[in-house]
Amino acid sequence: MTHISTDNSQQFASDNYSGICPEAWAAMAEANQGHATAYGDDPWTQRASDLFRDLFETECEVFFAFNGTAANSLSLAALCQSYHSVICAQSAHVETDECGAPEFFSNGSKLLTAQTTDGKMTPAAIRTLATSRNDIHFPKPKAVTITQSTETGRVYSLDELSQLSATCRELKLHLHMDGARFANAVASIGCTPAEMTWKAGVEVLCFGGTKNGMAIGEAIVFFDHTLAQDFDYRCKQAGQLASKMRFLSSPWVGMLESGAWQRNAQHANACATRLRESISGITQGSIMYPTEANAVFLMSDEARLEQLRERGWRFYTFIGGSARFMFAWDTDLARVDQLAADIREIMA
Amino acid sequence: MTHISTDNSQQFASDNYSGICPEAWAAMAEANQGHATAYGDDPWTQRASDLFRDLFETECEVFFAFNGTAANSLSLAALCQSYHSVICAQSAHVETDECGAPEFFSNGSKLLTAQTTDGKMTPAAIRTLATSRNDIHFPKPKAVTITQSTETGRVYSLDELSQLSATCRELKLHLHMDGARFANAVASIGCTPAEMTWKAGVEVLCFGGTKNGMAIGEAIVFFDHTLAQDFDYRCKQAGQLASKMRFLSSPWVGMLESGAWQRNAQHANACATRLRESISGITQGSIMYPTEANAVFLMSDEARLEQLRERGWRFYTFIGGSARFMFAWDTDLARVDQLAADIREIMA
Amino acid sequence: MTHISTDNSQQFASDNYSGICPEAWAAMAEANQGHATAYGDDPWTQRASDLFRDLFETECEVFFAFNGTAANSLSLAALCQSYHSVICAQSAHVETDECGAPEFFSNGSKLLTAQTTDGKMTPAAIRTLATSRNDIHFPKPKAVTITQSTETGRVYSLDELSQLSATCRELKLHLHMDGARFANAVASIGCTPAEMTWKAGVEVLCFGGTKNGMAIGEAIVFFDHTLAQDFDYRCKQAGQLASKMRFLSSPWVGMLESGAWQRNAQHANACATRLRESISGITQGSIMYPTEANAVFLMSDEARLEQLRERGWRFYTFIGGSARFMFAWDTDLARVDQLAADIREIMA
Amino acid sequence: MTHISTDNSQQFASDNYSGICPEAWAAMAEANQGHATAYGDDPWTQRASDLFRDLFETECEVFFAFNGTAANSLSLAALCQSYHSVICAQSAHVETDECGAPEFFSNGSKLLTAQTTDGKMTPAAIRTLATSRNDIHFPKPKAVTITQSTETGRVYSLDELSQLSATCRELKLHLHMDGARFANAVASIGCTPAEMTWKAGVEVLCFGGTKNGMAIGEAIVFFDHTLAQDFDYRCKQAGQLASKMRFLSSPWVGMLESGAWQRNAQHANACATRLRESISGITQGSIMYPTEANAVFLMSDEARLEQLRERGWRFYTFIGGSARFMFAWDTDLARVDQLAADIREIMA
Repeated sequence: MTHISTDNSQQFASDNYSGICPEAWAAMAEANQGHATAYGDDPWTQRASDLFRDLFETECEVFFAFNGTAANSLSLAALCQSYHSVICAQSAHVETDECGAPEFFSNGSKLLTAQTTDGKMTPAAIRTLATSRNDIHFPKPKAVTITQSTETGRVYSLDELSQLSATCRELKLHLHMDGARFANAVASIGCTPAEMTWKAGVEVLCFGGTKNGMAIGEAIVFFDHTLAQDFDYRCKQAGQLASKMRFLSSPWVGMLESGAWQRNAQHANACATRLRESISGITQGSIMYPTEANAVFLMSDEARLEQLRERGWRFYTFIGGSARFMFAWDTDLARVDQLAADIREIMA
Repeated sequence: MTHISTDNSQQFASDNYSGICPEAWAAMAEANQGHATAYGDDPWTQRASDLFRDLFETECEVFFAFNGTAANSLSLAALCQSYHSVICAQSAHVETDECGAPEFFSNGSKLLTAQTTDGKMTPAAIRTLATSRNDIHFPKPKAVTITQSTETGRVYSLDELSQLSATCRELKLHLHMDGARFANAVASIGCTPAEMTWKAGVEVLCFGGTKNGMAIGEAIVFFDHTLAQDFDYRCKQAGQLASKMRFLSSPWVGMLESGAWQRNAQHANACATRLRESISGITQGSIMYPTEANAVFLMSDEARLEQLRERGWRFYTFIGGSARFMFAWDTDLARVDQLAADIREIMA
Repeated sequence: MTHISTDNSQQFASDNYSGICPEAWAAMAEANQGHATAYGDDPWTQRASDLFRDLFETECEVFFAFNGTAANSLSLAALCQSYHSVICAQSAHVETDECGAPEFFSNGSKLLTAQTTDGKMTPAAIRTLATSRNDIHFPKPKAVTITQSTETGRVYSLDELSQLSATCRELKLHLHMDGARFANAVASIGCTPAEMTWKAGVEVLCFGGTKNGMAIGEAIVFFDHTLAQDFDYRCKQAGQLASKMRFLSSPWVGMLESGAWQRNAQHANACATRLRESISGITQGSIMYPTEANAVFLMSDEARLEQLRERGWRFYTFIGGSARFMFAWDTDLARVDQLAADIREIMA
Repeated sequence: MTHISTDNSQQFASDNYSGICPEAWAAMAEANQGHATAYGDDPWTQRASDLFRDLFETECEVFFAFNGTAANSLSLAALCQSYHSVICAQSAHVETDECGAPEFFSNGSKLLTAQTTDGKMTPAAIRTLATSRNDIHFPKPKAVTITQSTETGRVYSLDELSQLSATCRELKLHLHMDGARFANAVASIGCTPAEMTWKAGVEVLCFGGTKNGMAIGEAIVFFDHTLAQDFDYRCKQAGQLASKMRFLSSPWVGMLESGAWQRNAQHANACATRLRESISGITQGSIMYPTEANAVFLMSDEARLEQLRERGWRFYTFIGGSARFMFAWDTDLARVDQLAADIREIMA
């Protein structure tokens, strides 16, 4: 095979830059023995689903989708009709980076966005959006989606989650959790997955596998069975049913059985903390938001950010001049330290 | 890891029962070294796209989708508006087994189906459906989709393709090829991929990787650039853009560079031929359709099919009592012979 | 105003060729006094809704849409998700003449069509379509729609309706009635509207006003309140909420209070019967289907149909050479007799 | 007929509270003579279309829809695919009062909204929204919609329109005009309809008939023929093709031939000016925005607005405490003076 040379120096622009972790890979390899029935009627898919039920300590319903775009959009579409609306933060991934996927899968549900200071929704913000209009000329609010951990690297506490869900119940809104980095949130708080979801009032969770160390794949977990009605048909019609499903489900077996899902997240979070602590003394820039999961946001002037780029670093920048650094399961500590040193030098 | 015992005796109910072939696996393993930029901006995706352009001997545009449902539905949606219609055979996979996905992705395009004797569309069938209505009370025909090889295991000849495309051009219809088993068709005819597609007038091809030996993934190949406009947005919005794209594209590098795509198909086709020849003498059943690709359809009475099942064989049955046997890249010849022997015994 | 000369000789190609009946017109004129609150919060809309509840002898929920395309498609969309399917006759208007509207409004629900001899669905046909597939690769049947009176001018008896609805209940399918010519069906049987709908198991009715003598407008009547949930939002989003609603609702007040809805239908039906009886003796053509509502279908050879056209008659022809004649509330008996005479002469 | 007593004292909450003007009514009455071919193949529809071509002094293509929700949403859907976006003011009716209709008809196109001080879009606002993102993770901007006159009662000058369209052309954005009150804008400026549309670079106009004095109906006028391709199918599928089309088109004949469209708008505008001038001296409230069309926005404290309500006045209030008064073709000057007197008394 032609050798494709890739620059193996790690970059922290996205936790999607990482590869497949050994536990997920090993499970795929084992699943790749012989034949298996297609479309999920195989032992790996059964096993993965059972492992989720064990993990969440409840008889939840589990579906596997290829990516987060689909997982979030399909589960929101299951909560809404086209003339309903979904409340979220203005910084929510479903609003900013899904190219209108929620609107597409739901055939038109509008996203109602709340300005937040740090990417976290509050009961008050939900209430304001849910009650500002109640006439048929505006889509009826039907669901709230929160991202855990948030796009700003923050984590909702269990208490905050309970307050959000209480507000949702009062206002008759479903509560959906975009858990593209759910593992990072669980690792951050140190609670159980059950405590962070159904015990706190979350009805549907999209549990991200890709950023957590898999090649591909998210799990959609319904804690309320009535919401999952015919959801298998919905996935199939929307192009999210894998024929060789075992290759989508077996990595989950590897991740969940081995505990890699948690170790990977702990490592990523620790790298973020390490960077933050290493650069806490900078004076020509500031660190935005508490660092609670696997992201560090660095605010500085454009000239200094450009110097960072010139030293070879890649990162996303956001309005106002913040640079985002995301860490993954495979982050090399030496490389984090190298980044920290460069930041310190430039922003001392 | 818990050992999951799978019955490794091969079944021929579907070519989706097979696993990942060594060449695809090796490429994924190599791609899993270090970090890579997300969303397709990586060397593997570039390389895979270039390999498709080499293979098709033209500057086609290439996109990668997770499965055939999405690949076919998205490409048809690119050819149609919601008030248009797509002409296909009544046995076409898009009509019979996609749970309304083409209608969903296009927001309503109707499929107009032609009764065929053997699953192959004809110029006359296209003409009849395309011209039977021309008023605004019925969706305007805009595209034709043909499956190559067909759901009945037949292969359109280059001459047939040219005639179909001439009819399409005359009637101002786009021509789409569902190539879930494109490799099997190419292997069957022994022509070049270019001859089977754009040289014969095909405008868009969905080239199936899953059945051909990959874990997941189809390539959408546009030979007419204007039809591909903003197709990357369409894929993204529809949940078909992989973040760690290299794991969707690298298997193609392995398949195309090594020639495995062709070898795999040749082997599968040869297995079908082997079965057919081995059972040609049966008297209590008959073989439907010429065996031109990797499928054999066996018509018999229900009692005899039940005897086959009792001997442990799994297969799909279709209306009228035909049993389908599909062969994959990894089919064990001994297992084919075992099946042939059982059929001969039961249907002698 | 420029005088627009229209050929006022009546044609019977469609009952849509007729104008607005005096009772509907008078109500519009009365409604056009002064100001009224918009979007249905006006006394005319309230009155029309109450009149429907009186007519159907039950607390049904009533919505007003602009035309039958929307009324049928929106109510079917309320019964289905995109991955569900709707069972109907192959001759059903929703299948043959709505340009894919049901698929558009539902975002992809497939219509499963039954071949029928005369346009009438049967319990057996429903059962066959509803049970032929039960896997997620095919849209799950969720509703049945029947047209009363049918596109072939037939009328389901109350007994037939009860049998259809019993089958639907058993198979967990909703039952929808396309009543574009509901009044003609009621007039034909001489039953009450309640007997023809909810008492026979119909859950949703689209009651056609346009063909019955109005300018524009259909009423969607839900007999099961849970199915009507948020349907007002659905109508609004789909462009079916009139701002000056009184002009959509007041004609219904005129029609229902005066009994015009029934008289109009009786007259139209009587005209069809008159034509049929007048031409019963023809030998060079035949009358298709029993004449139970306001349509007569005449089968003859193309040469004779062409002679009819040469004498100035306009009509739709269907596959196989049948000519359709539809009668409206304003049909001139002399003109019917003229048509009958021409048919007799040509087809004696 | 039951007498329905309506409170005939005019309210100015909406210009939709008005009825049908005599010219539109007379045309409907004349159209209601005898039979006419259905679905637009009638002389009234032909005549109305020709009158629009005369009015706009160009060979535009004209379609008739039932209401503004549909007219705007369908024409925007013709300019966009689902993964595109539409730029508009945050106060635009399509954003605030269509219950997600644009998203529904387009199957997901996102609206990108600009904060404006007075409801008017600017070249700078368009540029900012059109260029802030150019990656496939965000819907690609494809069209701009402006409301003329605006929801705030302002009117874009011809010069402003030309600048907006120049920006659109530069950025490859289509320019759509929501003309629910187009006549008011034309009357305000005193230009020709051509000058306000295609001569200024507008590609599609929705010309509102309802607020202008009709019962129902908007005209969609395409100045660029290629954008109108198959638009008749789009209307049909979306439930916007009237069977008795003459009743949707004939009022336009009455309005356009008689010049009522312009007189009605002039009268409505004059009433707004009259109110504004009458209350210009108030000190306990202020008038928002220049009064350029048929609306007056009055900002005051809630207590004073409540006093107005207690005197029987109905009006919409907007965030921040502004009360809107809209005038229609039939506004009674005495009633305007009565309102002015009450405002002066309360807010002196």
